[in-house]
Amino acid sequence: MDHTVKAFDEDLGSLAQDVARLGLLATGEIADAIVALVNRDATLAQAVVDRDRKLDTLELEIEERAVRLVALRQPVAIDLRRALAAMKMAANLERCGDLAKNVAKRTLAIGDIAPPASLIAPIEQMGRLVLDRLETALAAYATDDLIRVREVWTRDGEVDAAYEGVFRALLADMMGDPRLISSGAHLLFVAKNLERIGDHATNIAEVVHYAITGEQLTERPKLAAGA
Amino acid sequence: MDHTVKAFDEDLGSLAQDVARLGLLATGEIADAIVALVNRDATLAQAVVDRDRKLDTLELEIEERAVRLVALRQPVAIDLRRALAAMKMAANLERCGDLAKNVAKRTLAIGDIAPPASLIAPIEQMGRLVLDRLETALAAYATDDLIRVREVWTRDGEVDAAYEGVFRALLADMMGDPRLISSGAHLLFVAKNLERIGDHATNIAEVVHYAITGEQLTERPKLAAGA
Repeated sequence: MDHTVKAFDEDLGSLAQDVARLGLLATGEIADAIVALVNRDATLAQAVVDRDRKLDTLELEIEERAVRLVALRQPVAIDLRRALAAMKMAANLERCGDLAKNVAKRTLAIGDIAPPASLIAPIEQMGRLVLDRLETALAAYATDDLIRVREVWTRDGEVDAAYEGVFRALLADMMGDPRLISSGAHLLFVAKNLERIGDHATNIAEVVHYAITGEQLTERPKLAAGA
Repeated sequence: MDHTVKAFDEDLGSLAQDVARLGLLATGEIADAIVALVNRDATLAQAVVDRDRKLDTLELEIEERAVRLVALRQPVAIDLRRALAAMKMAANLERCGDLAKNVAKRTLAIGDIAPPASLIAPIEQMGRLVLDRLETALAAYATDDLIRVREVWTRDGEVDAAYEGVFRALLADMMGDPRLISSGAHLLFVAKNLERIGDHATNIAEVVHYAITGEQLTERPKLAAGA
């Protein structure tokens, strides 16, 4: 292996390590945002909000290093795809952090008007589901695992179905008891944010698939990307 | 001017033209999505949904060409920043198209339960505001206009204030008349989608600023990026 190739592989490996680190930060934010919501823990919710800056900084670092790598070493084929994948992974993970931060902000906004546990439980369940998807997508990235990629990608509809169920249940509760309208509205956005984290897990599966194979995963399970 | 430099400039110019084209498609989608909502025009709403694929395709094209340009011609400094800016512009504009599509889908979901004009008017106003911001940001990109960049960037808070007003007004209407809860919930998301289009206009201003000056716009007017 010549010197240049080795240096490139080392740079790429260290980039992938930083992506994994950002992945851990993002999944930690999501897990804590869910716990803060369920336990009505304002201190933890505020910690989630405060920590988000770390993710923003790390994303910028990864992006800059990936761009420098492409510009200086002019990789082609799979090496180019891997460098660009690191950038895209970072962008998706930073957005997941933003969404977790938003869930935490909603928890703070709901404040002391405790919504009934019957409203929170399905949202917690949905949160666990999207967290599992994101962790599987990150594991697929770390181990070049196309089977896990497919698993995340084909099961994208489950998160949407969970979201639809939560949306309908929240509306029914709000109609049944108008005092729940204000906290219910915040919970609608919490559910939407979780659904969008699920979309990012799907995006990450697509990024990993393209990096490994050079082929786009087509026939997207759904057309909308979580708008 | 040597041959390589000229070829690079031509490639970059043609990339910027495609970004402008994508910008026109995105602003057209947003404008039509607002009109469809206000006029309860299901045909127009469906057209907005159907046209979104064109934006997705054009974004992928721009991204592929920008990557090829960087990999083949190894630009540095401002040329590298401009090539990367085209990619980021495209990503932001494609997301704006997704958000417009989602507004159109909400219009279709609300269906025949016409929400009162008093609920729709402030949302229409907010839609015009974010459309104006996005158009200004696109004009700044097309003309390298740092004054317009600053204008979009510093006035970011106005969209947030409009959104907060709409959010509160919708909740009050839903509490006052529970029959409005279902359409009100969809309108909450319409308002949120419009706010996020405003965030993309701010992001675009930042991308243009960095492409022209090489400096990041710091002291973001706000920390959240529209989660």
